Amino acid sequence: MSAVKLTSNQYGKAENHVVRVYRDTPRHELRDLNVSSQLHGDFQAAHTEGDNGHVVPTDTQKNTVFAKAKEEGVTSPERFLLSLAGHFTSSFDWVTGGRWSAEEYGWSRIDGHDHSFFRSEPEVRTAVLVRDGTDDQLVAGFYGLTVLKTTESGFVGYPKDKYTTLGETEDRILATDISTRWRYSTTDVDFDEVYRRVRGIILSTFTDHYSKALQHTLYQMGQNVIDAVDEIEEIRFSCPNKHHFVSDLSPFGLENPNEVFYAADRPYGLIEATIAREEATERPDVWAAVTGFC
Amino acid sequence: MSAVKLTSNQYGKAENHVVRVYRDTPRHELRDLNVSSQLHGDFQAAHTEGDNGHVVPTDTQKNTVFAKAKEEGVTSPERFLLSLAGHFTSSFDWVTGGRWSAEEYGWSRIDGHDHSFFRSEPEVRTAVLVRDGTDDQLVAGFYGLTVLKTTESGFVGYPKDKYTTLGETEDRILATDISTRWRYSTTDVDFDEVYRRVRGIILSTFTDHYSKALQHTLYQMGQNVIDAVDEIEEIRFSCPNKHHFVSDLSPFGLENPNEVFYAADRPYGLIEATIAREEATERPDVWAAVTGFC
Amino acid sequence: MSAVKLTSNQYGKAENHVVRVYRDTPRHELRDLNVSSQLHGDFQAAHTEGDNGHVVPTDTQKNTVFAKAKEEGVTSPERFLLSLAGHFTSSFDWVTGGRWSAEEYGWSRIDGHDHSFFRSEPEVRTAVLVRDGTDDQLVAGFYGLTVLKTTESGFVGYPKDKYTTLGETEDRILATDISTRWRYSTTDVDFDEVYRRVRGIILSTFTDHYSKALQHTLYQMGQNVIDAVDEIEEIRFSCPNKHHFVSDLSPFGLENPNEVFYAADRPYGLIEATIAREEATERPDVWAAVTGFC
Amino acid sequence: MSAVKLTSNQYGKAENHVVRVYRDTPRHELRDLNVSSQLHGDFQAAHTEGDNGHVVPTDTQKNTVFAKAKEEGVTSPERFLLSLAGHFTSSFDWVTGGRWSAEEYGWSRIDGHDHSFFRSEPEVRTAVLVRDGTDDQLVAGFYGLTVLKTTESGFVGYPKDKYTTLGETEDRILATDISTRWRYSTTDVDFDEVYRRVRGIILSTFTDHYSKALQHTLYQMGQNVIDAVDEIEEIRFSCPNKHHFVSDLSPFGLENPNEVFYAADRPYGLIEATIAREEATERPDVWAAVTGFC
Repeated sequence: MSAVKLTSNQYGKAENHVVRVYRDTPRHELRDLNVSSQLHGDFQAAHTEGDNGHVVPTDTQKNTVFAKAKEEGVTSPERFLLSLAGHFTSSFDWVTGGRWSAEEYGWSRIDGHDHSFFRSEPEVRTAVLVRDGTDDQLVAGFYGLTVLKTTESGFVGYPKDKYTTLGETEDRILATDISTRWRYSTTDVDFDEVYRRVRGIILSTFTDHYSKALQHTLYQMGQNVIDAVDEIEEIRFSCPNKHHFVSDLSPFGLENPNEVFYAADRPYGLIEATIAREEATERPDVWAAVTGFC
Repeated sequence: MSAVKLTSNQYGKAENHVVRVYRDTPRHELRDLNVSSQLHGDFQAAHTEGDNGHVVPTDTQKNTVFAKAKEEGVTSPERFLLSLAGHFTSSFDWVTGGRWSAEEYGWSRIDGHDHSFFRSEPEVRTAVLVRDGTDDQLVAGFYGLTVLKTTESGFVGYPKDKYTTLGETEDRILATDISTRWRYSTTDVDFDEVYRRVRGIILSTFTDHYSKALQHTLYQMGQNVIDAVDEIEEIRFSCPNKHHFVSDLSPFGLENPNEVFYAADRPYGLIEATIAREEATERPDVWAAVTGFC
Repeated sequence: MSAVKLTSNQYGKAENHVVRVYRDTPRHELRDLNVSSQLHGDFQAAHTEGDNGHVVPTDTQKNTVFAKAKEEGVTSPERFLLSLAGHFTSSFDWVTGGRWSAEEYGWSRIDGHDHSFFRSEPEVRTAVLVRDGTDDQLVAGFYGLTVLKTTESGFVGYPKDKYTTLGETEDRILATDISTRWRYSTTDVDFDEVYRRVRGIILSTFTDHYSKALQHTLYQMGQNVIDAVDEIEEIRFSCPNKHHFVSDLSPFGLENPNEVFYAADRPYGLIEATIAREEATERPDVWAAVTGFC
Repeated sequence: MSAVKLTSNQYGKAENHVVRVYRDTPRHELRDLNVSSQLHGDFQAAHTEGDNGHVVPTDTQKNTVFAKAKEEGVTSPERFLLSLAGHFTSSFDWVTGGRWSAEEYGWSRIDGHDHSFFRSEPEVRTAVLVRDGTDDQLVAGFYGLTVLKTTESGFVGYPKDKYTTLGETEDRILATDISTRWRYSTTDVDFDEVYRRVRGIILSTFTDHYSKALQHTLYQMGQNVIDAVDEIEEIRFSCPNKHHFVSDLSPFGLENPNEVFYAADRPYGLIEATIAREEATERPDVWAAVTGFC
């Protein structure tokens, strides 16, 4: 046999879908989270010997998620992940860290009703906590917020080679599904308030300039977020260019001055960028735990 | 060879994703539709002989969708489908009818902006037109509107047999994804206005009563819609009971008075019902063209 | 209030995913089914009054699926559905029928191993039983079997109009996902054997002729199935034309004699047809319960 | 404005679905790839100034994929990615590297036919090339291969705490979807041959031992792969524990000696591990480009 070693590894229970209701008054509140728990530490023997003496069962991790939703409550995804991490790293000597993550689904009251809600938010909010010993890194974000502008976007001045057929345009549709994650420099944050603020800045930036390319627009979004929120070290975007091609109606004797578009699926442009505070330290180890961002 | 016959058949181009922009003033408008066109008529020889003399290509149907979006515009999904049907049945003698359908995705302005939008609506609006000769049947609806109430729902009084383990409850979460279709008695309808009205009635009905079962709630939704909209003959619902099970925290010494729930995926209850105006004629032929409803 | 009536309705538990293992000898067997149960009968009061006296809980239906997998075993999806129907219609006076359905996932042994398997079959097998009083109708089928031929397919001789831009071709890729359902005239069938036979005929028919259009090919598949299997009354197909467009490489000075293709997603052709035995009775009521076929 | 910097970034065209047919003889061959191209290099000005002088359009990247499929052919996904990387890094001074990836879908001949195929392989093959200057790193793998054993699996000896309710078992179903990636130490590999070999080793390892936990099984898979293939430096697994719970039939007076199982969806165990050759260098920078592995 070749000599081998166990390097990176983690395990846990994924997608514990927990709904926490607050019903102390007739006006109920709810938080709706899909939580994953994964542990880091000394799990060597489980792999090499089949010795499960250190393997806190994934079933126990699931139970803990639901128990903590009662014991600690859910005030924000980030706080809830911190409470899970605190439990696991303090309860088991060999658990030195882990990765805890959550998706949150946004509900609104139906006509202001006390206990009736509809799932109103198009985007899914995300949070990831990576703990390594005493280092906590929190990455918040969202995905699934689709935006489109019908003008004030173009694409010109690019290099041409023998495989280029694209024509330049100074008036096109720009559309994308915004997927973004930002890393905090601290855990002392009003997470819900900052979330709303960042989402708002991203949306308003989309509207406020002529976009020379999606790269150009993402950079301005990042600049504006970092300007506004001191606790954010860096922000990443991974955004498809959802192509809306002007339908060629000339064979039918019709003009089409940017009125009728074919919305294509694949292939699509894919633009990814990170905008960091000038003095920020890079943390590729943390981002390795956040799938889908370059 | 056994003697066989060609019975029901249709063909066409599915999922033509067309975005129509109105930009005559600085305040742009857009409609975003995914349109399918399928023709009925004499297509016997294509099947039995490989003679395509009657087969209006699916590619031509696609071109027509985009051309009509320019020539006729898109004022509502229903009107657009009627214009497509008019074109195909008047242009080709052997096309005696068809099935045209659309999904519409709902956008809102970002902070009231003139030409920047986000996809705001959780539900997808649907429309189906079934034309058979001179008979036009329009079925409108939506899917993907998820609602949840944290109390004022129960389930008691059901029959028990040897396979029953469920306990009765007078206080539970009720949650469902509303999927509904309604059939109009006429094509003389303000389709956008009625759509908004029906959606509003369904939501408000969800809030306004103690639900004894999902069947009980769907029936009241149907009753209220038919009361309010004269042009609707019947309305169907196909709604999962999205189970939210009270998490059993007793092994951990914790009480759980309907505060922490496990949101399950499968299996799920599935409740389907049709509420029709007393004097309505049943039209199973039309509903056969609307997938996913009993 | 407008006078309304409850017309078509059904309810039950959907997607009970049951795996039945036979381990009486060291050589284990397994059947892997996703089963849905929906009841028909007198459920008027549940809708109009919230009186659940007739509502056999969907939870009980779930329990029954798992109990019957032990008590009756799973020899084929069709036999299993018949045993469920027998239970529910004989146990509750007011249950006069229902719709029971299953998807089956196909596993093969890993290198002939006694108890280790991999999910080998690309297609999902389906079965639907519609019982109405003493009438049992069984519809079997599958979906997800993707086929492609690189030549011996063309499309010519179609009508041209002002919206036609498609060119004729006598050599193209033909590709589709085969989705099919067939209705049996009897329940006295060796269901597993017939399933394998029909699947084989459909595949071999795909290979054995020059296809003048997908309609032409589906018809021959249907003819051959009905020729070969006496117990089949009619067979339906709903098949996308998965377009593979010849990539236009001429701007780069390259010829492309049907060597490089762009596989498109949407829009796609959608071809649906029913081939019935000459003397077969039409049963639109049964097909209304089988979603996705015209 | 806060001082910010552009750090990691890449862009390109994702999911170019290209089918390459070889038809030089009557016995056709085909390769079916979904290819993504993303460039690394000096794209600072595009982000900060909207200056696209360096932005090779994603449309050009798409054209290049299709042109290269003709010019270079597709002999394996890995070779094809190398030819794309060679083109882009040699054609544009400021392109210093990139990430090129492909998924391949596996087809088999229908009954050995010359030009008719069906999509036979349950898994999707993957390949990723990360080029940084003169360093090429190739990561191959697959996902979607579902395996299940009906016995010879258990889980005992784990730590218990106050949140533990799981009972020990020495006989359970073990099922997972195998998702794996392995990194080559060289580009001088017979990629298709190694792919088949690794897949075979993983499957046979699944059958050949009593599994004390999924960790234990994955480790042995990794050990065996590294033993057998000299060109592989390390291999990663990310595998759900697809729980099959023994259905509790005792309320119905039925025994269930591991015969009837409920196949659950969520939550699920998630086990991730890397097995590396003892002397291998770790390359987290490469794995950061391979989403979904810890």
